[in-house]
Amino acid sequence: MATRSRTDTTAPSTLSSLARRGQLLAADCPSRDVLKHVTSRWGVLLLMVMMGGVHRFSDLRRKVGGVSEKMLAQTLKWLEADGFVLRKEYATVPPHVEYTLTPLGRQVGKRVESLADWIETSLPVILDARRALASDPQRHVRRNLPK
Amino acid sequence: MATRSRTDTTAPSTLSSLARRGQLLAADCPSRDVLKHVTSRWGVLLLMVMMGGVHRFSDLRRKVGGVSEKMLAQTLKWLEADGFVLRKEYATVPPHVEYTLTPLGRQVGKRVESLADWIETSLPVILDARRALASDPQRHVRRNLPK
Repeated sequence: MATRSRTDTTAPSTLSSLARRGQLLAADCPSRDVLKHVTSRWGVLLLMVMMGGVHRFSDLRRKVGGVSEKMLAQTLKWLEADGFVLRKEYATVPPHVEYTLTPLGRQVGKRVESLADWIETSLPVILDARRALASDPQRHVRRNLPK
Repeated sequence: MATRSRTDTTAPSTLSSLARRGQLLAADCPSRDVLKHVTSRWGVLLLMVMMGGVHRFSDLRRKVGGVSEKMLAQTLKWLEADGFVLRKEYATVPPHVEYTLTPLGRQVGKRVESLADWIETSLPVILDARRALASDPQRHVRRNLPK
């Protein structure tokens, strides 16, 4: 966990401090790109699947329901450029390419997996909450005077 | 962690099994929407900020660098509909509205925070990996025969 306060908007966000630690709340911090890559729809699902070991492109395509070839290639490129995915190409005909998570990729994959796992497990509760809110959208409105 | 195998694509994805546990790898599972809401750019940053306590709309707008009024309102609506955010409206002029995480919201917020925190802390290593790859894009190509 962070030791600094997340609400401290007076913290300096110079390039040198960003190099020591990213600041996701700062609009111009490069950590925002990394966040985008790993939390994109296909980024999350790819990391989940790749936690299971080495995969070929076609394996990934089959396991991640609904992903297009183009989006799969794009997301793999992002994850490779961030140092999360290792692409191994063997000089055969046709070319044989394998994708694995790097140690850094496994670290981020673990966090993503924990979030994904929570969502899957909690889905029934979330669907109940949605139904309750849909049937009584005013239930959160409190007619109190502010202090 | 999940006890079932993530690679088991033969598992039934009937509505009743989805109600017991979501399956993010299935294209038609409603857990995909929840994932989209909490991992959207603004969803992640809002959850991070709201882990710090009660906020007004204007507080959230100020703390999350770069968010527009429209996207903030949209993301809050998503998170409210999923049961993660509680919106309290006080009947004053002008209206006073407060946003807080529900207990369910704090649970998902903790996972998101752990991911965000990892990205912030690891940013220097990630930026190094990017530079290394940019300067030698072929370093991952292995000229081996497949087994």
